[in-house]
Amino acid sequence: MSDLVELLLEGLPPDAVATDPDVTAAYRRDMAGFCDAGAPAVVVHPATVEQVQHVMRTATRLRVPVVPQGARTGLSGAANAVDGCIVLSLTKMDRILDIDPVDRTATVEPGVVNAVLSRAVAAHGLAYPPDPSSWESCTIGGNIGTGSGGLCCVKYGVTAEYVLGLDVVLADGRLLRTGRRTAKGVAGYDLTRLFVGAEGTLGIVVRAVLALRPAPAPQLVLAAEFPSTASACDAVCAVMASGHTPSLMELMDRTTVRAVNAMTRMGLPETTEALLLVAFDTPDPAADLDAVGELCRAAGATEVVPAADAAESDLLLEARRQALPAMERLGTTMIDDVAVPRSRLAEMIDGVAAIADRHGLTIGVCAHAGDGNTHPVVVFDAADPAEAARARESFDAIMALGLELGGTITGEHGVGLLKKEWLARELGPVGLELQRGIRSVFDPLGLLNPGKVV
Amino acid sequence: MSDLVELLLEGLPPDAVATDPDVTAAYRRDMAGFCDAGAPAVVVHPATVEQVQHVMRTATRLRVPVVPQGARTGLSGAANAVDGCIVLSLTKMDRILDIDPVDRTATVEPGVVNAVLSRAVAAHGLAYPPDPSSWESCTIGGNIGTGSGGLCCVKYGVTAEYVLGLDVVLADGRLLRTGRRTAKGVAGYDLTRLFVGAEGTLGIVVRAVLALRPAPAPQLVLAAEFPSTASACDAVCAVMASGHTPSLMELMDRTTVRAVNAMTRMGLPETTEALLLVAFDTPDPAADLDAVGELCRAAGATEVVPAADAAESDLLLEARRQALPAMERLGTTMIDDVAVPRSRLAEMIDGVAAIADRHGLTIGVCAHAGDGNTHPVVVFDAADPAEAARARESFDAIMALGLELGGTITGEHGVGLLKKEWLARELGPVGLELQRGIRSVFDPLGLLNPGKVV
Repeated sequence: MSDLVELLLEGLPPDAVATDPDVTAAYRRDMAGFCDAGAPAVVVHPATVEQVQHVMRTATRLRVPVVPQGARTGLSGAANAVDGCIVLSLTKMDRILDIDPVDRTATVEPGVVNAVLSRAVAAHGLAYPPDPSSWESCTIGGNIGTGSGGLCCVKYGVTAEYVLGLDVVLADGRLLRTGRRTAKGVAGYDLTRLFVGAEGTLGIVVRAVLALRPAPAPQLVLAAEFPSTASACDAVCAVMASGHTPSLMELMDRTTVRAVNAMTRMGLPETTEALLLVAFDTPDPAADLDAVGELCRAAGATEVVPAADAAESDLLLEARRQALPAMERLGTTMIDDVAVPRSRLAEMIDGVAAIADRHGLTIGVCAHAGDGNTHPVVVFDAADPAEAARARESFDAIMALGLELGGTITGEHGVGLLKKEWLARELGPVGLELQRGIRSVFDPLGLLNPGKVV
Repeated sequence: MSDLVELLLEGLPPDAVATDPDVTAAYRRDMAGFCDAGAPAVVVHPATVEQVQHVMRTATRLRVPVVPQGARTGLSGAANAVDGCIVLSLTKMDRILDIDPVDRTATVEPGVVNAVLSRAVAAHGLAYPPDPSSWESCTIGGNIGTGSGGLCCVKYGVTAEYVLGLDVVLADGRLLRTGRRTAKGVAGYDLTRLFVGAEGTLGIVVRAVLALRPAPAPQLVLAAEFPSTASACDAVCAVMASGHTPSLMELMDRTTVRAVNAMTRMGLPETTEALLLVAFDTPDPAADLDAVGELCRAAGATEVVPAADAAESDLLLEARRQALPAMERLGTTMIDDVAVPRSRLAEMIDGVAAIADRHGLTIGVCAHAGDGNTHPVVVFDAADPAEAARARESFDAIMALGLELGGTITGEHGVGLLKKEWLARELGPVGLELQRGIRSVFDPLGLLNPGKVV
C-alpha cells in the first residue's frame, strides 16, 4: 500500500478509498470532449466534513493534487483527473440538512442531486430555480463549482444568485465558513460568490445555504415559427424591450428541429428556420402569451401556436429538452456555450451558420435566447481526424465570434480545461494576473484541481 | 507646492486639485458617527478614467494613501479621510453613458446619483431597483462600494445583484475590466462581485454596467398595528411562509412611530407597539393585501388599513422614509444595521428593547422586516461623555446579539471604520486571513483606503 493510501485510511473507512484501476478509471473524466484526462492514484468518497478535511490535510502533507468531483456531468473538463491525483468525490455527502420556509433557505451537502432538492423543496411550496439540463443527475456541489444555469434563468437567474453561504474545506484542511443565512449581508469581501464557478480550484464546498423562492405557477408555453433566425431574434428583442419577463425563452434552429423530429417523431415544423418557445408563469399567462404572439407576428413569425394547457406546454418543452440528445445521434458532438448581449443574438446565430459552412460541418444551435446564451452543437465524425480538427476549429471560431460581439466564452458551462486558453483571451493580462493571485491566496501549493480555469 | 500636488497637476487640470484646508476639511468624513477622520493632503476631482489612472500612478509612486469618495452619505466611515491622503472624489464623473432597453443594461460613471439614474431609466420603462434612503444624493459608485440596499430589497435584491461588469483603476494605475454585458457569464472568478462592498479597498470603480428591470407597477401599501413586536414579526414570518413576495415589508416600533408623529404630525397610531407596512406591485395588489391583511389579523393585528390608492400608499411610505430624520431630532443618533434570519426577527427586536433598558437609552427600531434587516437607532446626548459611552456600548451589544441569532453585523451599510473589529469577529480568523490575502493581491502597498474593512 502506498504512503498516500495508508495515510488516507487513517481518517477514512476502507470502503471510501478505491485504488483498483478498473474502479478509478471510471472517475477519469466528465462529459466534455476534446479534454485530456489523467489516471487518478486513488478515488475517495468521504461522508463527513471531517473526512474531507483529512483528505486535504493528507494531500497537503504529501503534495498530492486533488480533483473534486460531483456527478461528472460537466461539459468543460473541470472534473477530469490529473495523473496521480486524489479524486475527491462528494456524491456520498448527499443530505438535505434543513429546509426553512420562513427564511426560504435550504442547507445541503454538496452531493445532493439538483432534482432531489427541487422535489424536496416543492413539498414545502418552494422552488430552487437553477435547472441545468442534467438536473436529474447533477449535484448542487457541481452546480456551484461550475455556476450552472438552465432554462429558467431568463426570469430566475443562475446558481450564483441562490448561494447565500458556504462551508468550504481549504487546501490545507482548514474549514472556512463564508456568507450568511440572512437575506442581506455585506460583511467583508464576498468570498461566497468567489467560490461559485471556481470549479473546485479554491476549496472544497462541503455545505451550502441556498436561497429558495415560492414555487411559481405552472407555465404556459407558446411556439412561434420564423422564416429566419434574424426575425426570431428580432422577436426576442421586441419581447424584452417591451417589458415582458418570460419564464423561458428558447430558440432552436432548423438543424436542431430536424434532429429532434428524427429522434422523437414529434412532428415539429421542419420548414421554418427558427422555432421560438416562450413561456410565462404569471397570474395570467394566456394574456401574456397573446401579447408576445403579436410581437412574434410583427417580427415576421409565420405561425404562432400557444399551448392550450399544461400538457401541450410540457410537450413543447420536451422538444427543447431533447435537443441535445437528438443532436448526439447525428455523430460525435461538441457543445459550445457562448453568451452575447441579446441585442447581438441574430449576429451570433447567423455567424455560427457561416462558420458551419466554412468548415463543412453540421452545427445546430439551440439557445437560451432570452439570455443571449447560445449552445451551438458541432457534429463531427470522431474517427476522421481531419473532420475532428475542423470541429475543434469551428468550436474556437464560435468563441472568437462571441467575444467579438461583446459576449463571453461561457454563459453557464464553465472554463475547465476546454476553454482555459480562451479565458486568458477574455480576461486579458491584468485580469488573469489578479485571478492567479487570488488562486494563490487560497491554494499556495497549487494542489486544488491543477491546470484548470486559470 | 508639494511634490505630490506638482505631480498630480501633471495629469489633472488645476481646478480638479484642491489643497486649501478650508476646502479639504469638507471632505474629511461621511455620515457615520464614532469614527476618526484625518486631514487630507489634497482633494482631487478627476473627470476621466485617464485622470483617475494618473492619480493612482502618482499615489503609488509617492506611496501616498488614497481614500475614494462619492457623495459621503455612507454610515460606516468608509469614506473618512486619513491624514495626508489623497481624497479621490468621483462626483465629477457623473455621465450616464448608455441605457439599452433590449439588453436591459445601463452603463454609467461612478458619480451618477442614484435618483438621477432611476429617473433616466424610468423614461425607458425600466427600473434600477436598489433604493437606499439617501437615493436622492448618494452615487452609484458609493452604492457599489458599500453594497447598498433599501426598501425594495425584499423583492428586488441589493446592489450586488445589479452589477454585471466594472471598469476599475487598480492601485498601480492599471485599468481592469471585469464581468460582462451579458445576462449570464461564468468566465473565471467573479471579480465583479468582489468589488461590490469592498469600500474602495481593492480599486477605484470608474465605470459600471448595471442590470435593469422592467419598471414595476405602482405599489399599494397596507398598514397593520400590532400589540407587540413579537406578533408583528409573527405576521412577517406568516407572510413569507405562505409564499407571498411583497415589494416592501417595513416595521417601525413605537419609539419610531412617536418620533415620526412628533416631527410630521402624521397622526400615526401611537398606542401600538409595532406598525407594519406591507406593499405589493403585483397585477392585483388589492387581492394580495387582502390575503396579507388576514395573516396580520391572525397574528394579532389590532387594526389593518389597506391604502385605497397610490396617494394613500405614498403617505404611508413617507412615514417610513421620515423615520431616521425624526429620530435625529431626539438627539445625536447612531444607526445600526444588523440583519438576522427573518425567523429570528422578534428575538432581535425584543433583544434591542432589553439593551435599551439596560443602558438607560432610547433606541428606536425600524426594520426592513421582510429581509430581517433591522436599523436600531440609538439616541444619546453627545455632550454627555458617560451617555455617549453607553450609546457605543449598546451599539456593540446590538451587533453581538445579531451574531448570536445567526445574523450579520451589516446588512447594507458596510464595515468601514465603524464595524472593523466586529467584522473580524463575524469572519473568524480563517476568513479574515483570506480576506487580507485578497486585499494584498489587489493592493500590495496598502494604499487604497487604508485602515478600512479588514
